[in-house]
Amino acid sequence: MQNKPFFELEYTAEDCKARIGKITTDHGEIPTPIFMPVGTCATVKAVEQRELKEIDASIILGNTYHLYLRPNEDVIKHFGGLHKFMNWDRNILTDSGGYQVFSLQDIRKITPEGVEFRSHIDGSKHFFSPESVVNTQRKLGSDIMMVLDECVPYPAEKKYTADSLEQSLKWAKQASDHFQKTEPLYGHRQFHFAIGQGGMYHDLRKEYIERMCQMEFDAFAIGGLSVGEPTELMYDLTDLSTDYLPKDKPRYLMGVGTPMNILNSIERGIDMFDCVMPTRNARNGQIFTTRGRLNLRNAKHKLSDEAIDPGLDSYASSNFSLGYLHHLIRTEEILGLQLASQQNLAFYLWLVKTAREKIRTGEFRHWKREMEELYEPQK
Amino acid sequence: MQNKPFFELEYTAEDCKARIGKITTDHGEIPTPIFMPVGTCATVKAVEQRELKEIDASIILGNTYHLYLRPNEDVIKHFGGLHKFMNWDRNILTDSGGYQVFSLQDIRKITPEGVEFRSHIDGSKHFFSPESVVNTQRKLGSDIMMVLDECVPYPAEKKYTADSLEQSLKWAKQASDHFQKTEPLYGHRQFHFAIGQGGMYHDLRKEYIERMCQMEFDAFAIGGLSVGEPTELMYDLTDLSTDYLPKDKPRYLMGVGTPMNILNSIERGIDMFDCVMPTRNARNGQIFTTRGRLNLRNAKHKLSDEAIDPGLDSYASSNFSLGYLHHLIRTEEILGLQLASQQNLAFYLWLVKTAREKIRTGEFRHWKREMEELYEPQK
Repeated sequence: MQNKPFFELEYTAEDCKARIGKITTDHGEIPTPIFMPVGTCATVKAVEQRELKEIDASIILGNTYHLYLRPNEDVIKHFGGLHKFMNWDRNILTDSGGYQVFSLQDIRKITPEGVEFRSHIDGSKHFFSPESVVNTQRKLGSDIMMVLDECVPYPAEKKYTADSLEQSLKWAKQASDHFQKTEPLYGHRQFHFAIGQGGMYHDLRKEYIERMCQMEFDAFAIGGLSVGEPTELMYDLTDLSTDYLPKDKPRYLMGVGTPMNILNSIERGIDMFDCVMPTRNARNGQIFTTRGRLNLRNAKHKLSDEAIDPGLDSYASSNFSLGYLHHLIRTEEILGLQLASQQNLAFYLWLVKTAREKIRTGEFRHWKREMEELYEPQK
Repeated sequence: MQNKPFFELEYTAEDCKARIGKITTDHGEIPTPIFMPVGTCATVKAVEQRELKEIDASIILGNTYHLYLRPNEDVIKHFGGLHKFMNWDRNILTDSGGYQVFSLQDIRKITPEGVEFRSHIDGSKHFFSPESVVNTQRKLGSDIMMVLDECVPYPAEKKYTADSLEQSLKWAKQASDHFQKTEPLYGHRQFHFAIGQGGMYHDLRKEYIERMCQMEFDAFAIGGLSVGEPTELMYDLTDLSTDYLPKDKPRYLMGVGTPMNILNSIERGIDMFDCVMPTRNARNGQIFTTRGRLNLRNAKHKLSDEAIDPGLDSYASSNFSLGYLHHLIRTEEILGLQLASQQNLAFYLWLVKTAREKIRTGEFRHWKREMEELYEPQK
């Protein structure tokens, strides 16, 4: 695969910005648009690695913050990287750890050099710099690495956001330089993504992207959205961002989102997504199906002998009834978490796969409206 | 399979009472000696049904007490029985519910008619009689049903034990009569086992068995052992029991036990076992392997890249390192419970499978001593 380009843009819809493409790394191909299941701590919660393959996951996401703390980067290096540690031979993207550090508002301190924080586990002190998170991700050996940035909280003053922009752009430059100077540790290539911030300010978002795109990165992500702002504002800023992002590189909207967030963002030209929603909601008894969202705890499912999702052929979807899954969730059985998590990830991967098909046939926007009837019906 | 006998005794060792046999029901063959994974609430905790097949489980156990309370017998009847409800097409044995009711000392009341108890979930009042638990197990549709008995607590006075014996034998007769008068509900045959009690008294155990064996049952179990008595006493009473139990019917030692408990009881002529130990201990971070027992939390496993159990080829055993499993257990990841549970059940099923092979080749006692070195080394 050494001769294949990292990203090939295959087709763009005629009636919107939706696109189909392909990312190629040494761990295989990733058709885009794609959803990446979140495997925080070297495991996608309640789902086995072989089950991720069954539902056609081509890439998963690992959280650098969590892996840095447990088991820690040197343990993972000892095992030959994250792929070998968790026995996953497909793609892995790791975030920079910045998002988790900045979410822990109380226990971190930003300086021009980086960010000091305390472990949420034992309170111990740690420091992330633009260079250190490159080093950590070299040790993790992810196929795609992310730069350290400050995820500006919502809401934030314009002055704060503009200052943060300068800081994060400076960090991005340092990260890029450091990335160029360092080598992968395990014989497979690693790619490096920058992250556009700019809070909720259109002009700052635009400026950030223009300046970021002058640096050498394999792709650009959009960060700092889906942090509490109105959904329409998120869509606006996504739309604006993809107007300025280069067409020949993948665009990754970080941490998004609901099924309709994903389809609406695909329509606006996004290629990559990750979100804890499918697995987290599964553990809370909510499943996403091709017939809509279901609350498994609802007594109306008690006697239902319908398959969990007749529209999907995953193990969970097709082998068990809603009534059985209702029982497992009500009795807090671990198998309930397993089956619901498999179902939700199968659904999310079906969603992006179907999006790809519908973009190709020109039916994407029509199909999106059908999904809207299921997932966000107008009152 | 209608013409095959329920049990065929194939071979008995020359140097001990260990035996190989085969149970045949409408849900397939069960080679004996066998271990039955415990699927309390219509699921073996943290293990998928297809994974039970992978590790060659031919029969699992369901708990009538738990299923009666949740989802309840009529819900399961609505789904066409427990096999269909949980999508398991191999064998199921259900206990009578008695053991759970009698373990809840505070909230039950025994009368000659049966036992009144309160639900551990919501405190609601319920009543089990010898006849009612037959009816419940008809609705569950298990391949093997157990009679209601009183599991005499340890220690217990002889007078109490003797009175309980009379009560339980009377109940066994009622259960047998009721079983003869009722029919299976789902088109497959159901078999009915009695349970020998008698506390820790050799003469009462013998009397119980002799009187029980005059009734019409498909097999006889030994109950009320492994309840806190010294291990040697358990072995003695097991030994005595198999001296009096008919050779042409399977013998089931209920709720036993550790790997060595199982091998020592096979040596004394037992054919069937169940125990929560492999799955419960897995969830507490203890695994059983062909190299011995391991505490996964122990820091010494942190950097181990050895397979979980190189001696077994289950998915968990062969695809992941001890270091990875250590990490999953330490971070309380659900996948850790899944893999450890698969490993422990794979080990228990390997244990009885190897026992069968070693009995056939005349090496059973020799091999048992080897396992003793691993599992109960002399100081």
